[in-house]
Amino acid sequence: MSHADPFLAKLERARVAAQSLATVTTAQKNAGLEAIARALESSIPEIVTENAKDLALGAENGIGDGLLDRLKLDEARLRGLAEAVRAVIALPDPVGEVLRGSTLANGIKINQVRVPFGVVGAIYEARPNVTIDIAALALKSGNGAVLRGGSAAENSNRVLVALIQRALHSVGLNGEAVQTIDEFGREGASRLMRARGYIDVLIPRGSAGLISTVVQESTVPVIETGSGVVHVFVDASADEEMAVGIVTNAKTHRPSVCNAAETLLVHRDAAERMLPRLARALQDGGVELSGDEGARERAEGLLPATDETWSTEHLALAMGVRVVDSLDEALAHIARYSTKHTEAIVTQDYANSERFLAEVDSAVVMVNASTRFTDGGEFGFGAEVGISTQKLHARGPMGLAELTSTKWLVRGGGQIR
Amino acid sequence: MSHADPFLAKLERARVAAQSLATVTTAQKNAGLEAIARALESSIPEIVTENAKDLALGAENGIGDGLLDRLKLDEARLRGLAEAVRAVIALPDPVGEVLRGSTLANGIKINQVRVPFGVVGAIYEARPNVTIDIAALALKSGNGAVLRGGSAAENSNRVLVALIQRALHSVGLNGEAVQTIDEFGREGASRLMRARGYIDVLIPRGSAGLISTVVQESTVPVIETGSGVVHVFVDASADEEMAVGIVTNAKTHRPSVCNAAETLLVHRDAAERMLPRLARALQDGGVELSGDEGARERAEGLLPATDETWSTEHLALAMGVRVVDSLDEALAHIARYSTKHTEAIVTQDYANSERFLAEVDSAVVMVNASTRFTDGGEFGFGAEVGISTQKLHARGPMGLAELTSTKWLVRGGGQIR
Repeated sequence: MSHADPFLAKLERARVAAQSLATVTTAQKNAGLEAIARALESSIPEIVTENAKDLALGAENGIGDGLLDRLKLDEARLRGLAEAVRAVIALPDPVGEVLRGSTLANGIKINQVRVPFGVVGAIYEARPNVTIDIAALALKSGNGAVLRGGSAAENSNRVLVALIQRALHSVGLNGEAVQTIDEFGREGASRLMRARGYIDVLIPRGSAGLISTVVQESTVPVIETGSGVVHVFVDASADEEMAVGIVTNAKTHRPSVCNAAETLLVHRDAAERMLPRLARALQDGGVELSGDEGARERAEGLLPATDETWSTEHLALAMGVRVVDSLDEALAHIARYSTKHTEAIVTQDYANSERFLAEVDSAVVMVNASTRFTDGGEFGFGAEVGISTQKLHARGPMGLAELTSTKWLVRGGGQIR
Repeated sequence: MSHADPFLAKLERARVAAQSLATVTTAQKNAGLEAIARALESSIPEIVTENAKDLALGAENGIGDGLLDRLKLDEARLRGLAEAVRAVIALPDPVGEVLRGSTLANGIKINQVRVPFGVVGAIYEARPNVTIDIAALALKSGNGAVLRGGSAAENSNRVLVALIQRALHSVGLNGEAVQTIDEFGREGASRLMRARGYIDVLIPRGSAGLISTVVQESTVPVIETGSGVVHVFVDASADEEMAVGIVTNAKTHRPSVCNAAETLLVHRDAAERMLPRLARALQDGGVELSGDEGARERAEGLLPATDETWSTEHLALAMGVRVVDSLDEALAHIARYSTKHTEAIVTQDYANSERFLAEVDSAVVMVNASTRFTDGGEFGFGAEVGISTQKLHARGPMGLAELTSTKWLVRGGGQIR
């Protein structure tokens, strides 16, 4: 197939290049990644120049300091990105791993092996570092990548993708495996979501709004990476020191990320014992608390909570606090408001810990640990593809293996049915 | 949540019942399945009476003998269905299986375990036996099931679902876990596809048109089960006896199913040697052949193939035959026309067998075996959930395990980051 349509032509080139990537050796893929890391280091002035255009446009459009900071690439960040690519080189290659296998009664041998998806699509916003991250993870797992990084980072993404393509080409790989479609604007993003036959899986990374749009519009299978309305439940039997440590860590260690806690549920008995201290520890950490009546009766300085409090992912130093009468009430609250990312219980009660683990329907369910541990790096996966909040294919922290599919290899000697 | 909307009220009842199913023991689920099997046996007259209404309506509407036969439930078929339910009892319960686990450097223990999806939605056509099949598989894997079996089988499905609900209730399980939405008509099917938050995964079973509609319209994650434009490639080095055996078995053993072969590719050298015999063997089996020029030059009685020949899933005694110059040409043909279900090579050449296994991007890739072996039963899975032709979550024959998701259980002793 060759396409007059320049959008489909790009996707087709990625598809064809990905086919060849699927069967190259790990050594060849690692050589490609090393070439990318070196190119990042040797092209710093060129990248910074292109990035400056995006920064200038962003400032002109008043996109705000937070976004400008995310957009910025300087020497330190580029050297950090090169190191991140080398970290991917160090990871084991998931492709070819034999997951299951057996010899059937008729002598046929079957093996289920990991294979690349083909082409991974990614839609994200104003984060040129994600261009390198996703490309490196896709390449290591034998996939092509079609990237829509958004118009705000168009110049940065263009120079980075060109660099990746040249680097792959320099070691004899087909550089067309990585493509940017930023130049096709919003229309390009919409078309990407419907590019069945070209894109095998689509990963949105960004705001809840972006993810929701992709889920609604996409006909390509999507892996949702997720927002987290994360709960910590302090049970009646909780150890006070442990509860204070876990709750403050879960909320304040890095409030802007999805595994940070958003809602504190406290059993009435524990609230009597320790809510004043818990609240003060959070407030000392700069957290603005909103509580239900039970919480506001027992601790000071809490704003009144509204129904919105419980469904909000603050991603900031803000937290809802609710006092519950029982584990059942805590479980019911979580079932209603959780985004199924991570929930934790702090308890000394064995039966309650087991019930919480069994009954909470979230990607990660914890006993006596900070929710901040929901992380591919912490789980030992090495790479950070994202944290899936869906139930199909991947759930929780995703490593390289989650960027692969499988196929069955069947070796016979002429068997028929 | 309680709903005035009767459609959402049903889905909500299924959701709540599924929550309780997720944590019941295997013994309890098996008791429920045994109660369903007994109810099927003891309710034969009642079911046959209701089924007769659907058959009468179908005959009146002229739906054709094939569809009428699929629709029919008689004593033998109902006893067969009861046995199929008992076969599901005999299968191991996938829920709770520990897939991975480790102790992190900080002492936290993590375990990835299989959990039910929640509620499985199924959309199928005029096959009341699927109502029992899917319900039994969903229940064994701890899931609820919301079934849209189509208006043509509405009376049969209604009596079967009522029977399932009573049987579950009789052993103390929440019978609301299984629901039919046939009474909501096409509108119900559309709403099911958009019932995010109620339905965790949707499985369409039926025609390519039905599956395509579900993929296009659904915002609930879908597992496509698939149509198969299945290829057999007879390589230059193929053993003649083996080739004749495999090709005729793949085409004629059961032509109406998705793992039956639709296209025969023959290397030019093999065509010289054996195409006349291969063609005659197929024709003797009643197969109507359509060939390209190379095939029609070498064998008799072939219609001229058109481009449509190569993309058609005949599901009947019809087959396309094409002579190719090389393995590369065979791989290119397959890449273009395959629906990525199953492809097989017949060869005595080691390098070609390995290239075929590596480069064909299909759910199942075979050397020297009939494509008819792509089957959950043949693979030793026990159950037949369907054959996935997508790459996300499940690929190839699906067993009970493919009706589960996973979650991570994290047990700590107060660790923070």
